[in-house]
Amino acid sequence: MIDLYTAATPNGWKASITLEELGLPYELHAIDLSSGAQKEPWFTAINPNGRIPAIVDRGNGDFAVFESGAIMLYLADKVGRLIPSDPKGRSRVIQWLMFQMGGLGPMMGQANVFNRYFPERLPAAIDRYLRESRRLLEVLDRHLAAHEYLAGDYSIADIANWSWAHTHEWTGVDISGLDHLTRWMDQIAARPAVERGRAIPPREEDNDEARVEKARGMLV
Amino acid sequence: MIDLYTAATPNGWKASITLEELGLPYELHAIDLSSGAQKEPWFTAINPNGRIPAIVDRGNGDFAVFESGAIMLYLADKVGRLIPSDPKGRSRVIQWLMFQMGGLGPMMGQANVFNRYFPERLPAAIDRYLRESRRLLEVLDRHLAAHEYLAGDYSIADIANWSWAHTHEWTGVDISGLDHLTRWMDQIAARPAVERGRAIPPREEDNDEARVEKARGMLV
Repeated sequence: MIDLYTAATPNGWKASITLEELGLPYELHAIDLSSGAQKEPWFTAINPNGRIPAIVDRGNGDFAVFESGAIMLYLADKVGRLIPSDPKGRSRVIQWLMFQMGGLGPMMGQANVFNRYFPERLPAAIDRYLRESRRLLEVLDRHLAAHEYLAGDYSIADIANWSWAHTHEWTGVDISGLDHLTRWMDQIAARPAVERGRAIPPREEDNDEARVEKARGMLV
Repeated sequence: MIDLYTAATPNGWKASITLEELGLPYELHAIDLSSGAQKEPWFTAINPNGRIPAIVDRGNGDFAVFESGAIMLYLADKVGRLIPSDPKGRSRVIQWLMFQMGGLGPMMGQANVFNRYFPERLPAAIDRYLRESRRLLEVLDRHLAAHEYLAGDYSIADIANWSWAHTHEWTGVDISGLDHLTRWMDQIAARPAVERGRAIPPREEDNDEARVEKARGMLV
């Protein structure tokens, strides 16, 4: 059994979708970011960075894993699925996973901060991150023009990038003309495990305003 | 022989220091970011994201690897050093590598953008990224209080985080009081391979102004 500490954010969905795709049993612990639970000592003992998601693998000596990208690799390797075993295939998946970790995630994340949560309105900062997010989605689009998935078969690289890319509307990034990206997003969204993982944890907020209020907790 | 395409930036040093530590022979191709060489078709064929560093492993069928974190993992696995082979040890290294990829790198990078290169002066944005960078360096400091290195023996996790952390002065992050971080930074800086890799590619710019001018190429 795996303990999953998470919240309804793209990084959280990376973990819950991966667990659902691999069919691993897990116990959900929803973290209320607005209450600052992720900064409490019991949680920073699991993730010293005080961020979701994090997991504890009870079946492996209560092994704790933090950082969504590291969780995905750990789980995929544990089961031997969603990443190939040959060195080149593995590296291709890891390259596109790192593209999300160091590029798409942080840039869409900063766009969200300045476009949604920041106390001050800074048009130049909003513009910077929306343009950078669009540029990164264009990189995916060009690659997906010639590839069904990002790195060979469907993999954790697709889950990672999809978890961010499909929230483009919330972020405010225009994806018009990115037809290959759209084809790939639809294809992944149609997977039952993705649908299940995307609903974890169940959302209490019923409108945008409540989501923004809740998400401010991530700025702390 | 490995082709290394790089520039004198923290992400570039992650690759050159790893190559030096592993003793792998490589041919240096310095990329002039201000001329936009990283956006030319011959380069985006290697890295579709148009970013340094990237490598091509001639000894492995001209296999191309982009994203600094993916390059480090590929090289460490190729030689079987700088990352342990047992699943828990590997995961610990990958967790701290991801911490740098998704946290310390992007946040110090954005601090540099707003503090050094951005056309507009946005104090609230500068403040946000300096505070977040300091917070992340404090996470490292607390962990290093009880650990000599980030994840067991010296590993690619140390190289990745060091490559960013040691540039704190350029970024403008105050590290006063972070004695464990300082101890660790000094320890790594003293390694001959780190000293060699940190000097790759040799710097032409002889002052801060020229460095800023050059770095603006990364904003495009």
